[in-house]
Amino acid sequence: MAKDFATRDENYSQWYNDLVIKADLAENSAVRGCMVIKPYGYAIWEKVQAQLDKMFKETGHVNAYFPLFIPKSFFSKEASHVEGFAKECAVVTHYRLKNSPDGKGVIVDPDAKLEEELIVRPTSETIIWDTYRNWIRSYRDLPILVNQWANVVRWEMRTRLFLRTAEFLWQEGHTAHATEKEAIEEAEKMLHVYAEFAESFMAIPVLKGVKSPNERFAGAVETYCIEALMQDGKALQAGTSHFLGQNFAKAFEVQFLSRENKLEYVWATSWGVSTRLMGALVMSHSDDNGLVLPPKLAPIQVVIIPIYKTDEQLAAISEKAHEIMAALKAKGISVKYDDRDTYKPGWKFNEYEFKGVPVRLAMGPRDLENGTVEVARRDTLEKNVFQLQDIDTKIEHLLDNIQENLFQKALSFRERMTFNADSWEEFKNILDTTGGFISAHWDGTPETEQKIKEETKATIRLIPINGKQEEGKCIYTGKPSQQRVIFARAY
Amino acid sequence: MAKDFATRDENYSQWYNDLVIKADLAENSAVRGCMVIKPYGYAIWEKVQAQLDKMFKETGHVNAYFPLFIPKSFFSKEASHVEGFAKECAVVTHYRLKNSPDGKGVIVDPDAKLEEELIVRPTSETIIWDTYRNWIRSYRDLPILVNQWANVVRWEMRTRLFLRTAEFLWQEGHTAHATEKEAIEEAEKMLHVYAEFAESFMAIPVLKGVKSPNERFAGAVETYCIEALMQDGKALQAGTSHFLGQNFAKAFEVQFLSRENKLEYVWATSWGVSTRLMGALVMSHSDDNGLVLPPKLAPIQVVIIPIYKTDEQLAAISEKAHEIMAALKAKGISVKYDDRDTYKPGWKFNEYEFKGVPVRLAMGPRDLENGTVEVARRDTLEKNVFQLQDIDTKIEHLLDNIQENLFQKALSFRERMTFNADSWEEFKNILDTTGGFISAHWDGTPETEQKIKEETKATIRLIPINGKQEEGKCIYTGKPSQQRVIFARAY
Repeated sequence: MAKDFATRDENYSQWYNDLVIKADLAENSAVRGCMVIKPYGYAIWEKVQAQLDKMFKETGHVNAYFPLFIPKSFFSKEASHVEGFAKECAVVTHYRLKNSPDGKGVIVDPDAKLEEELIVRPTSETIIWDTYRNWIRSYRDLPILVNQWANVVRWEMRTRLFLRTAEFLWQEGHTAHATEKEAIEEAEKMLHVYAEFAESFMAIPVLKGVKSPNERFAGAVETYCIEALMQDGKALQAGTSHFLGQNFAKAFEVQFLSRENKLEYVWATSWGVSTRLMGALVMSHSDDNGLVLPPKLAPIQVVIIPIYKTDEQLAAISEKAHEIMAALKAKGISVKYDDRDTYKPGWKFNEYEFKGVPVRLAMGPRDLENGTVEVARRDTLEKNVFQLQDIDTKIEHLLDNIQENLFQKALSFRERMTFNADSWEEFKNILDTTGGFISAHWDGTPETEQKIKEETKATIRLIPINGKQEEGKCIYTGKPSQQRVIFARAY
Repeated sequence: MAKDFATRDENYSQWYNDLVIKADLAENSAVRGCMVIKPYGYAIWEKVQAQLDKMFKETGHVNAYFPLFIPKSFFSKEASHVEGFAKECAVVTHYRLKNSPDGKGVIVDPDAKLEEELIVRPTSETIIWDTYRNWIRSYRDLPILVNQWANVVRWEMRTRLFLRTAEFLWQEGHTAHATEKEAIEEAEKMLHVYAEFAESFMAIPVLKGVKSPNERFAGAVETYCIEALMQDGKALQAGTSHFLGQNFAKAFEVQFLSRENKLEYVWATSWGVSTRLMGALVMSHSDDNGLVLPPKLAPIQVVIIPIYKTDEQLAAISEKAHEIMAALKAKGISVKYDDRDTYKPGWKFNEYEFKGVPVRLAMGPRDLENGTVEVARRDTLEKNVFQLQDIDTKIEHLLDNIQENLFQKALSFRERMTFNADSWEEFKNILDTTGGFISAHWDGTPETEQKIKEETKATIRLIPINGKQEEGKCIYTGKPSQQRVIFARAY
């Protein structure tokens, strides 16, 4: 793998695109804005899915599947939802093609026009709440704790692999509750699940908070979010969890008989993360040598490469390599032995380094003699010679160590890149030099937030939960404020 | 669960619909032809997916993801494919909605018309082979063994839950090979994987064979299939695997440099099974008391129900029940303890019977005294009292036994319902009385097959692989034939 790609300093944006494409994670397709997720990228997504699905089930959720299409009229039922979602979307208007009269290809059959257009789901609150109406009669039917793994489509003008694509994969949880308190608890619980996943599996430290009204999900009463900081000092929203109040229950007439035998509207939440997480994963840890993957999400955790000249040497090394593989697999570690003779060891070293494999073992004739193996870790690029005794336990500890090191490295980066700003000059100066999270006072009005955005492209990423109360002055208007909020330029 | 649903004898079709809806597997949605897969149904589908995915990976396949949308022009590139697939499909023509001028809801924005319409994928050969063109340069890039789990849409006029829906979930394998031989081996290998899954996990015996040209996949050189027989004597195609020759490689210009340094077209296969399998599962084993699920695919394999009058009794039973649960879970058996006080034991017995839970344990104060438990098996409805000693091993064996019994029962049904027909009268008589698989001679022409279909609604389900060669006369035309083929009316 030649290093024919940009460095982060040269062009961070280009570095990201090069990495995603050249490391075989994803590529653009023939369909504008839609990506192909390649096998290596998809294998990471499968690990993300498996772990999240486990965490959802451990917190009492079950999976289900709802239609891809939503009748156009459904979007008009929740007033603010239609503004946010029914605009840039894929619209199905016909259900048949026919042979072109000129004999060249096919054309849309004008006789097969749908009475009501169907929208390819940009998110599923409307179709799901239309369904829940028939599932819910009394408090005994509640709560409903459902999640869906699905593809969704939002027609984006400017797209970037994983970060912003017209079609993307995600999960969307949609829960229904008898009380406001229970629904808020659910929305907060799922925020914590997302944060736990981001930090313990993706090795990405995240801030938790709520969105300002400007940045709230269309149809939500409160939007909780986790925000991560990328290496270029820009923020990335990594997951959101919404308390929807009774908005969708009212729009779709979903009522239940309470324990007190009163007819009440149902309380709702929804929460989701998407293949966008793949972008966050790449941007958080990777370097100018290529991908760096946290061991817990790496499709290949360990690669073994034989160094040999003769067939006899290869045979002897292979025997030992298979012993090591068996021991590692017994510990649940995924390991690949690359004994292809079509590529030289140096090429393979570069290849696996570029693909972010956390640990590389190299073994030559001298290692065999000495009972050793050369161990290279991807995160620090350090090499060491390990004795083969208890190699499985040593590698297991090394993987844990790499996982932890990636998190700590990202955490200290974020800490270095989080600043207090107490004046408008200071605020702009930080944005124009280092970027990062800026903790600053804000007067609480959407107008001020909007003006700051227009002048600096920075937005309020979140209002910290249980943030410290302190007297201060809004950096933009000077009006009084009781709490700092977190600003940043964002993806 | 009141038994307010049709019996199989009264109305087989109604029985099926009632079962699917009342057992909470799926329901119709607000969108014509699209279903909602409910949590209990989806839990079964997750088990199907997990097992198939494991088998695909064990045979060297990896997963990837390709776009939902396909440019209209792609369908015109493979001549027979366009006939088969580009007709009844969902067509996206616009990418934006806007507020209606009358202020009531939203309308399609006429300014946001796509230059080229997009088709919601009915199957992905075209978009995938368009992608493979860039992945394949030399024989070193082959084989490509990729599978995709996805939703697809075929606009069906008459739909039935799981069996025929406009949107359905499936997997589609798409492989690329350097030689014809290797591609044929792959298509046959996946047929055997499907058959193994159907028989060992779904407990459904299947016939293996190839389709006649009339029933072949649009674009295939050969279509392999597995066919199952439902309780009403109708056949159901449960999976297909296609050898596509070089058809798609030629249509999308996918060539590679061979070992001999010659430019050649790539050989292809595709293979798929869908949520239709859920319909086969329901129809193969269930009875007039409700669902019957094979243990290997049952979301809940064992349910434990306490029988008690006092709180003290419940406490004592619960303690023992939790011991049993722990022992069963340690063996990987999924078990539910239903101690809800809102329902009586008799109601619960009916509920789990209706939902097809393979084994039900009931435990009352007398059982506690005697160290016993009442064990009911869903397949035969037999009840027995088991000693609690080694209950985990006993239940494990019982589940194996139920799995095997369901397969044997379905197999003997199929054997009873498979007939030789040597005359046209005999052929029609079988169809009008019992139905079932009919093994008969056919003159090998599409015209005869078509006429038989028009007169009887029976089609050739398959031509057996390695079928016995015998001289015979076509039941319809009397022309000579060398091998019997399998006819049936089909779903």
